[in-house]
Amino acid sequence: MAPVDLGKAFASITTHWDPHIVGELNGQCVKCVKFAGEFVWHKHDSEDELFLVHRGQLHMRLRDGVVLIGPGQFFVVPHGVEHQPYAPEEVEVVLFEPASTLNTGNVRNRLTKDVLKRL
Amino acid sequence: MAPVDLGKAFASITTHWDPHIVGELNGQCVKCVKFAGEFVWHKHDSEDELFLVHRGQLHMRLRDGVVLIGPGQFFVVPHGVEHQPYAPEEVEVVLFEPASTLNTGNVRNRLTKDVLKRL
Repeated sequence: MAPVDLGKAFASITTHWDPHIVGELNGQCVKCVKFAGEFVWHKHDSEDELFLVHRGQLHMRLRDGVVLIGPGQFFVVPHGVEHQPYAPEEVEVVLFEPASTLNTGNVRNRLTKDVLKRL
Repeated sequence: MAPVDLGKAFASITTHWDPHIVGELNGQCVKCVKFAGEFVWHKHDSEDELFLVHRGQLHMRLRDGVVLIGPGQFFVVPHGVEHQPYAPEEVEVVLFEPASTLNTGNVRNRLTKDVLKRL
């Protein structure tokens, strides 16, 4: 019967591009993840993805521009939309997305995480 | 192509117990709401509800105790669980829940909001 503390969750994460599940509801997951550098261009064919920035500045590259997302701001990437997260400096991001969402979407590479850690 | 800024969203809300839709994804809604005082005891038969505190301290009363939720913390009330939000002082809360969720759940009273504003 205790809340999840996002600050403590991020403090326990020592890896990048490695989403950790911190909550579940209605078939959706809440995930904490630290970004640093460039991720892979990808899309999710049927899942919308919410990026809420906890600390730092996230550059969400889309094919037609860049969305800058700072602390206390969120952005929803609709399904089917190609995107590339870019973090010039480390960013702490809270994700809300279906439990089934694969981090690299339609791409498989060394960053793909098939099994996620839980905090 | 701009992110949603939670601080600006809350700054524009002048009412209490009046959820405003600020985002939608995967059939779920992101809502900003200001709590002040006591809400009604209620439950949601089939919908889990996430309460993320942006500012202030939320007391989530459950039948077997109270969960204190502060800034940067969240708590999920599972479907079927009776709860009563209580805010001794004003609290800014971000909700994640299905688009269909009625704020007063299985209860109807003067606080029930059938139609939500959008920011």
